[in-house]
Parts: sequence; structure tokens; C-alpha cells
Amino acid sequence: MAVTDVAADSLAALDTPCLLLDEARLTANVARMRARLAGLGVAFRPHLKTAKSLDVARRAMTGPRGPAMVSTLREAAYFAEGGVTDLTYGVGIAPQKLDRVGGIRRQYGADLAIVLDSVAQAEAVAAWVAANRDPVCAPLPVLIEVDADGHRSGVAPDDAGTLTAIGRVLVAGGAVLRGVLLHAGDSYGLSEPERIAAAAEVERAAGVAAAGHLRAAGLPCPVVSIGSTPTARFAEALDGVTEVRAGVFMFGDLFQAGIGTCATGDIVLSVLATVIGHQRAKGWIIVDAGWMALSRDRGTARQAVDQGYGIVCDPAGTPYPDLIVRDANQEHGIVALRPGSAAALPDLALGARLRILPNHACATAAQHGSYHVLDAAGRVSATWPRIAGW
Amino acid sequence: MAVTDVAADSLAALDTPCLLLDEARLTANVARMRARLAGLGVAFRPHLKTAKSLDVARRAMTGPRGPAMVSTLREAAYFAEGGVTDLTYGVGIAPQKLDRVGGIRRQYGADLAIVLDSVAQAEAVAAWVAANRDPVCAPLPVLIEVDADGHRSGVAPDDAGTLTAIGRVLVAGGAVLRGVLLHAGDSYGLSEPERIAAAAEVERAAGVAAAGHLRAAGLPCPVVSIGSTPTARFAEALDGVTEVRAGVFMFGDLFQAGIGTCATGDIVLSVLATVIGHQRAKGWIIVDAGWMALSRDRGTARQAVDQGYGIVCDPAGTPYPDLIVRDANQEHGIVALRPGSAAALPDLALGARLRILPNHACATAAQHGSYHVLDAAGRVSATWPRIAGW
Repeated sequence: MAVTDVAADSLAALDTPCLLLDEARLTANVARMRARLAGLGVAFRPHLKTAKSLDVARRAMTGPRGPAMVSTLREAAYFAEGGVTDLTYGVGIAPQKLDRVGGIRRQYGADLAIVLDSVAQAEAVAAWVAANRDPVCAPLPVLIEVDADGHRSGVAPDDAGTLTAIGRVLVAGGAVLRGVLLHAGDSYGLSEPERIAAAAEVERAAGVAAAGHLRAAGLPCPVVSIGSTPTARFAEALDGVTEVRAGVFMFGDLFQAGIGTCATGDIVLSVLATVIGHQRAKGWIIVDAGWMALSRDRGTARQAVDQGYGIVCDPAGTPYPDLIVRDANQEHGIVALRPGSAAALPDLALGARLRILPNHACATAAQHGSYHVLDAAGRVSATWPRIAGW
Repeated sequence: MAVTDVAADSLAALDTPCLLLDEARLTANVARMRARLAGLGVAFRPHLKTAKSLDVARRAMTGPRGPAMVSTLREAAYFAEGGVTDLTYGVGIAPQKLDRVGGIRRQYGADLAIVLDSVAQAEAVAAWVAANRDPVCAPLPVLIEVDADGHRSGVAPDDAGTLTAIGRVLVAGGAVLRGVLLHAGDSYGLSEPERIAAAAEVERAAGVAAAGHLRAAGLPCPVVSIGSTPTARFAEALDGVTEVRAGVFMFGDLFQAGIGTCATGDIVLSVLATVIGHQRAKGWIIVDAGWMALSRDRGTARQAVDQGYGIVCDPAGTPYPDLIVRDANQEHGIVALRPGSAAALPDLALGARLRILPNHACATAAQHGSYHVLDAAGRVSATWPRIAGW
């Protein structure tokens, strides 16, 4: 049998819709990012919020214990239980969550650090440390979030008063001031490498400036952590930065391809679907992957090329010319040519299988409970579970 | 303690983000729809794709065994295992799924019907029936999907040739031709009751016409099944229709409020979130519910009032004036006033709780593994699990 037939045969055993993971592409994406960051002289802390899978994490991390970044305490507990103990929880801490943080630190001996950006949070941490004088969980490590670009949370990098006030409350309260953390969220709206590189420089300079304010006040700041997939991909120099975080780069997606951080051929995930009908007069092929399987993410709608709910490929993963998921209901996808395309609609019979590349890997993966892993021959070689929830 | 304090106290014990369900509103929404359809003289087959929960299903169905509608075979198996045996699987059948359909029918003694809209599918069903001459699962009931409004799948209601060809293949092949099924998908794009009532009449007339073609050819057609939440809400007469399906009406959401099928005060679900930060100069309140908790659904973006990622309420469920989730990252929500609002930003301190009404109940609920149920006093009285996957 030809390679494509072997692959089709292996996929035929799967119920659809389901999520496929191309392991060779994952390995290549990780190797490329590691080489890049090693060349820039910084540590790599992969963000596990996209994958939410120990199997993926073990391939992405530089060691079995991490470092790694998480977006929920559910992820922190899951990865810590799996032996990943060098963890940073990247969403600003709510006081109510400190007991869970302490519990994960204690139960797994995890070095789980938290993030905050206000004196009020620092005071809550100090009060919690005072009430929890346990030698394992009490010396709680904290990073101060700094706002690189006005995107979301964080102290302004030139707001030395707030930075040092937070730092002093933490140190006086017995927490460990580990450093500063930034996320260049606005880089996702750029698409030229030069502009993303400029955003990376803004992120770097903001981190170094904020660290400088802390150090000038006699406060410790060993870590300067930056990161986003676009800036990690295009940063030219990272002097003063100690670690870089990135997550979606592992998988890539159509949004990332639209801003140039990966090629379509680097995209690791696809949703396997089955043809369930046709509306031939309209040029529609109906498949059993709707937005529940693809997610509601329409991130490419704001890009130069709108990919609908995803690019449609054959079972071997080769895109059909101009074929996308034009619209989606909960469990129905409407596959059709791009508006204005002169390509021929492929003749996909009832029951035919196809693969859909996602707009946004984080959102699409979250709709599924596991990854069906494809080896280099396109065979399903494993099933990797993934977690959900908080 | 005042009622709102009792409620706030009960909510304080929950980890955020999480999904809340107001049981009194659910009961009222179900009672209203049942009374409406009883008055129109039709049976009610609630669609369980929104809730995916036996606890909700038992409150929505007219009997413990159904009737009910499902959107995945995973739902079919889950509900059948819970005693719901009168089921229709509403997504056009793929030949590969017939063994699973047969397995569910056999294992649970379920009357699980399927839907199709082509001669190719009917031939696949006939071949399957011929190969599975089991007295329980073999007399497979089938509904022919009819296209009410060009929205998605289905045979045109005036295409007597295709309708009767499908019917003949099914009957000759030993399947049970149960009737026709329609879904007025375009009704979700309307917002005046008169226009939705007109869409309901189009849906009704198409169903009756298609059934007439089958009956004129000597084929059975006992069931004429129509349904969508908008048409179920505003249909004025349903002569010739035997059953109505609807799902999202149980919960309501901001999209449905935008088209007038419910009021904001009828919305059953909300996402409980915690304030984790502020960007005071921008008027932003940062919360720990991002698109992972709210879903990526932005259905109200195309409506007269764009609700962002949802309307923000206090812990008792009362909306703050003009306060919405303006933007969302994976685990961060940016709460702010609507553009142009003259309202005052409420003073929500670090750690404060708030509730977010969803754009689309089906999509938001799918991001969560359970419902935290609030009783009439606003206390958390139960946790109801829900399922996911296919």
C-alpha cells in the first residue's frame, strides 16, 4: 500500500470528529524554538496552556521538571503531579487562590511561582505568608507583571514607585521576589517580521527597565521573563532577559501562519472529519465537524486572508486548493471554495475523510479530550490525553 | 443575613471561573415552552445539545424516557444509559456511524432514530440493515431531512423525486421511514416576532409539503418534526406538524435576547469570575474568566447591541449598568463600560466576585464540566455534571 493509503486506513478506525497531532511537526517546531532561544542565550519556559498534555510537555520542555508556564491552577496541579515542578502560574493571583497554590507547592514539592501587579495583591500575599509559615509552601516566589504594550495587565515599566512598593511589601512579608514578567500581547496583531522584532525589543527594554527600578531600590530581581510566540520567533537580541515563554508555537495554527510565525506546513493539529452530505447546487460539502470540534475562534477574520473555520486537507494533510470551512453550526461544517476562487470543488463522496487546520490551536484543542498522534508514516501511533477546566 | 449576602457567601466557596445555573429560571423557561407547544397541539422533543446533562434533561423532557433530540452519538449513549430511550440523532448520518447507532439501540433498548438527506445515505442504511438483521437494532427508524430555508442540509421540500427515491430505498431496504425533519436555521438571523413567525410558517409549510410528497407516493410519513428556538417561540399555528424541537430556549443567552426570544432576566447560565486586577487609567477591571471560560462565541457582534464577551452582573445576578467583558484572552477577561457609556465604573476590589451572562449558552456551557446550581435563594444547592466529546 502507498503511504497515503496506510494513513487513510489508520484514520478510518477513528470516530469523527476528533483531533489529530502530527508528531514530526511538533518535534520540528520545538527544536527550532529551542535552537533559536539557545542562540539568544536565554532559558526557555514553554507555556503549556495550549497543549494541556504531559506527553506534549515532555517533548517541549528542556527537562522533565520544567521550566514550564501554566494558565490555570488545574494545569499546575496536573503537571506537578506528572513531575513538572518548576512552574509559573501566569494569570494575576486572586487572594482566594493562594491556598490552592500553597497546596500544590506542598503536595508535590513544586516550585510554583505566582504573578501579580498591584500593592493590594502583594499585601494579600504577605498576609497569606504570615498565616502559612510552612517551610515548603511559605517562601512563595512572586513575579511582578509588567505591561509591555498596554495590552492587558501589568505595572507600567517606568512606574518605579509602584514596582518598588510592591517589591517592598513582598520582601517585608516574607515572599520571594523572583523578578518581572511581561507578555507582548500586541505582537499578535502584527505581521511583518521587522515590526514583531520591534515589539520584542519594546518587551525586552520594558522588562530590563522594570528590573532596573527594582534593583536600584535594593530589591532582588533575578528573573526577567518575557514571551509571546511572535516575539520569541523574531526577537533579534535579548540582553538582560533571563527566560522566554511561548506556547502556541509548538502547534502553530492559521492565525500564526497569517502573522508569519509559522508556515501552513508547520501546523501540528488538524480536526479529522467525515463528509455527511452535499448541497451540490451551492457548492457545499457538509461535514461532521462544526464549531464544537473546531471552536468558535475566527481569529483569521481580521487578517489579510480569512480562513473561515479552517483550511481543508486530504487525509494525508495536503490542503485542497482554496477549500475552507466557510461556516459552522454546532456539529455541522459547511465546506466550500473561498469566495471568488476558480478552483474546482473536489469530489468528496459521502463518508470521505478530510482534515481541517485550525485558526487557533489553543481554542481548537480545548474542544477535545485527547490527541490522536500521527507518526511519520501518517499512522495513528498513540492517544495522548489532555486536561480541561480550572 | 440579607438574601444577597447568603448568595455571596455560598458563591465564595467556589473556585473561579465556573459555571452557574439558576434553577428557577430554567424551570420557568421550560414551563413557558411546554405551555406554548401544548397550546399549539404538538409534541415537544427538547434538544439536549445545549445542556448535555441528565439533570437538565429530566427537567426539560415531558417524560423520563423522552422524547429528546441529540447532536452527537456520545450524547445518545449517555442519555440512553440514563433511561432516555426516545431519541433522534439530528446530524446527517455517516455510514461509518451506523454500527455505533445499532450498538446504542441494542445496548439500551433505545428507539434511536437517524437523519439523512440523500439516496447515497439511504443506500448505506439499507446495506447496513441487510447486514444487521437483529430484531432490536435492525428496524432502524429514519427521518428525511428537508431544507426549510437554504440554511444547511436537507432535500428541497418540492423535490418530490429525491424525497420519494430516498423513501423507497429505505422502505425496500427494511428501514423504518418515520417522517421528515426540518430546522429553520435562518430564523436566528431575524429579530422581529412577525418575521420569525413567518419563518416558522415557511418551516411548517415545507415540512407539510415534503410529507405530502412522500404520502402521495404511498410512503409512510407519521412524523413531521420542525424546530428552532426562535420558531418554537413565535410560531402561530402548526397544522400538520407533529413535534417541535428546541434546545437553547432552556437556558437563553444574550444572542437569543438580541433576537427577542427571551429577556436578559430569563438567562439561566452565568460564569462566576473573580477580579484579579485593574488598569485604572483605562477603566479596565481584569477578571479570571477569559475566552476559555466564556467561549470564543461573539454572536452578538452582528446584532444591534454588541455585548462583547458578555454582560457583567453582581453576585446576585443583577447587571451593572453598561458593564460588559470588552475583550478576552485565554484566561483573562477585560471588563469595562460599553463604548460611549456615561455610567460610572463600579468599584470592584481585588477578589470581588461577579457573574457574566453568556453570548451563546451552547458554546459557553461546552467550556465547563459541570453546572453549579443556584436555588431560589441564590445558594449553591447542587452540582450537575455535563458531558463533552463525540
